[in-house]
Amino acid sequence: MLTLYDYLPSGNGYKVRLLLSRLGIPFKLVERDIQHGETRTPEFLAMNPNGRIPVLRLEDGRYLSESDAILFYLAEGTPFLPEDRFARADVLRWMFFEQYSHEPYVAVARAWVHVFGITPERAARLQEKMDGGYAALGVMEDHLVARPWFVGERCTIADIALYAYTHVAHEGGFDLSRFSNVGRWLERVAAEPGHVPITKRDFA
Amino acid sequence: MLTLYDYLPSGNGYKVRLLLSRLGIPFKLVERDIQHGETRTPEFLAMNPNGRIPVLRLEDGRYLSESDAILFYLAEGTPFLPEDRFARADVLRWMFFEQYSHEPYVAVARAWVHVFGITPERAARLQEKMDGGYAALGVMEDHLVARPWFVGERCTIADIALYAYTHVAHEGGFDLSRFSNVGRWLERVAAEPGHVPITKRDFA
Repeated sequence: MLTLYDYLPSGNGYKVRLLLSRLGIPFKLVERDIQHGETRTPEFLAMNPNGRIPVLRLEDGRYLSESDAILFYLAEGTPFLPEDRFARADVLRWMFFEQYSHEPYVAVARAWVHVFGITPERAARLQEKMDGGYAALGVMEDHLVARPWFVGERCTIADIALYAYTHVAHEGGFDLSRFSNVGRWLERVAAEPGHVPITKRDFA
Repeated sequence: MLTLYDYLPSGNGYKVRLLLSRLGIPFKLVERDIQHGETRTPEFLAMNPNGRIPVLRLEDGRYLSESDAILFYLAEGTPFLPEDRFARADVLRWMFFEQYSHEPYVAVARAWVHVFGITPERAARLQEKMDGGYAALGVMEDHLVARPWFVGERCTIADIALYAYTHVAHEGGFDLSRFSNVGRWLERVAAEPGHVPITKRDFA
């Protein structure tokens, strides 16, 4: 059975939990608390030298890290990853957008406000995070004007990757009511078969 | 012919220029100065709503953005992207590592010091960028202890992606002499056939 080393509040981890649930693949969830150094132990660093969750342990004992690389691995050969060469690259385009232009703002603001708590240093930089997050949400809103999904005619791992932190953006103080296309897309993703909430921890 | 919209000092753009050169694919380079708003014009935003170079225009008129998604598109079916499912995902793992844990530190420090210039606000945050950059370089150094390349037995787009900003890290103030495995790997990449420097602008 697959084993996922993960931290429940993490949207990066939730991406993987959500795709595994959508695909009906059972897995063992092993929680590692990033607030208590549990991803910086020698045991954890042997699995991912970069010291971050999520990490997927395959049945043959190999490890894979980076949430979006794990999504790509799991989605190969399924409808969550298109066969067409351009469409596959376009899915990756939105996943790299997520990790570079969305997560460092939307997810970090949420982590500071909702998970770790605000310090004076974080408070001084929160506006920068809000500005970057709203810019990313604006790009998403415009893209979804005339499209139900980010790439093609069905839900792909581009949608899964972007859903993870967007659906909890309000926990970081973002006002999603300004983004009606994004709002309808969030409902569309959540209505798909096999959907699970970010708080679900009983998978095996 | 392919057209690449790019900014010459950008390592993200250089990744694409380097892979195209390695593959012997001719292309037209169209420079867009990110310091003068040339990636925020209506014309540019129609190509990439996220307003960033590089953008690749295909011969059929479609556009692809995000440097690592472009690398993946160009490398499909070539030796720069493995056929094996796990190896492909592992290549992506290092590309997501590059965009999340390396570029925001190594590339941003270089941009501030070498391209845009240091302001008081940037000076106050430079140490954070150096710390993050050295952490990423340390992960690379350890990975290369007993490996010639990041994934498998030859140069892939994981190496191309990581080479782009690592080989100019000294321009951001990083001391690469601390990282001997990284140093030998940089020489290995630069010795590959079809190598071009980041400053080359005559391609077509």
